[in-house]
Amino acid sequence: MKVVVLVSGGMDSVTALYHAASEHEVVAGLSFDYGSKHNHRELPLAAWHCEQLGVPHQVVPLSFMDDLFESDLLKSGGDIPEGHYEADNMKQTVVPFRNGIMMAIAAGFAESIEAGGLVIAAHSGDHAIYPDCREDFMKPMAEAITAGTYADVQVLRPFIDQRKEDIAARGAELGIDFSQTWSCYKGGELHCGKCGTCVERKEAFEIAGVEDPTVYLE
Amino acid sequence: MKVVVLVSGGMDSVTALYHAASEHEVVAGLSFDYGSKHNHRELPLAAWHCEQLGVPHQVVPLSFMDDLFESDLLKSGGDIPEGHYEADNMKQTVVPFRNGIMMAIAAGFAESIEAGGLVIAAHSGDHAIYPDCREDFMKPMAEAITAGTYADVQVLRPFIDQRKEDIAARGAELGIDFSQTWSCYKGGELHCGKCGTCVERKEAFEIAGVEDPTVYLE
Repeated sequence: MKVVVLVSGGMDSVTALYHAASEHEVVAGLSFDYGSKHNHRELPLAAWHCEQLGVPHQVVPLSFMDDLFESDLLKSGGDIPEGHYEADNMKQTVVPFRNGIMMAIAAGFAESIEAGGLVIAAHSGDHAIYPDCREDFMKPMAEAITAGTYADVQVLRPFIDQRKEDIAARGAELGIDFSQTWSCYKGGELHCGKCGTCVERKEAFEIAGVEDPTVYLE
Repeated sequence: MKVVVLVSGGMDSVTALYHAASEHEVVAGLSFDYGSKHNHRELPLAAWHCEQLGVPHQVVPLSFMDDLFESDLLKSGGDIPEGHYEADNMKQTVVPFRNGIMMAIAAGFAESIEAGGLVIAAHSGDHAIYPDCREDFMKPMAEAITAGTYADVQVLRPFIDQRKEDIAARGAELGIDFSQTWSCYKGGELHCGKCGTCVERKEAFEIAGVEDPTVYLE
């Protein structure tokens, strides 16, 4: 099947890209520049992995999100909170309906370039604090995409029954250079090691028993 | 309820705006500049009606659609076909998953400005040629929006059981100046009178028995 892969440049979506390339014909990698503090770190890495695989890469500019939306993940928002993801203050990093917006745009793009599928790296550990990661969002959203396109575009979620550490293991198996992926929400020179995504990234490598090539600030 | 209204500047969405203002607190009118041939005609009219009602108006720029998507409705596409909507060639004017994309962005915006509802002027005459107008798209899309937002944003479709002529009648009742609305896909100086939307616009006024203030080219 011809597929478009949503690839942010993080470890999950980069693994989804290589995994999809092993099973499908990946006709494009699609990234979004929505004004987050870490977009400038992620996007060049998404482009780099697409280039390694000979896959065309497109960046969709969504500057209106930084202008109109409220979230500390955005450049217009406050500081990124530290600590484990479950903590209440991580809510501040939710960008309202971000997954819905990205999936909708990817669906229209897939239909335009005659791809029949859309791959997203959603996994079982995606968080209850993000309503647009939950199954009761994902299921109707996928239905809406299939019903709302002529080609009945399918949403493929190869990692939906897996945890982040399973993705780390699968990535290692695929030979992915994880030093060329970015997680940290702060978007500094190095991964901060303290924000929710950094904490998770560390844990995933550790539990999977995969060497973590990331240089953390602390 | 605080609501955001999707307002393109066409007769349906402008009527939805005034209708919503009669029932709810409209906290914003939201338009999209997605590179269609007629956006430059529609958008100033959407802004004008919002101003009449004292409603803040936002235009979301979606230039990527003209760059990446295939449709004759877009500036990058071919000529707008003429004749009645049902005709096969009107398919060329479908912008892939346009409603899905606009609704998703509006959902995130609504959540950001603490609106609980999203009003869209979908009606019973919306066309089978547009998959993202059909009920089997609208229903799961609305579910995804409610499930994917903290505030359980509701999608309101006040005209879903009505025809376009009923909307013309309702607009007349609300005292709307329909000369300040735009339908024609060609986006010229005047309404062409021959494309699918012009044909429908004429018919709606005629069947409703409402005076049509539009100056058509022919």
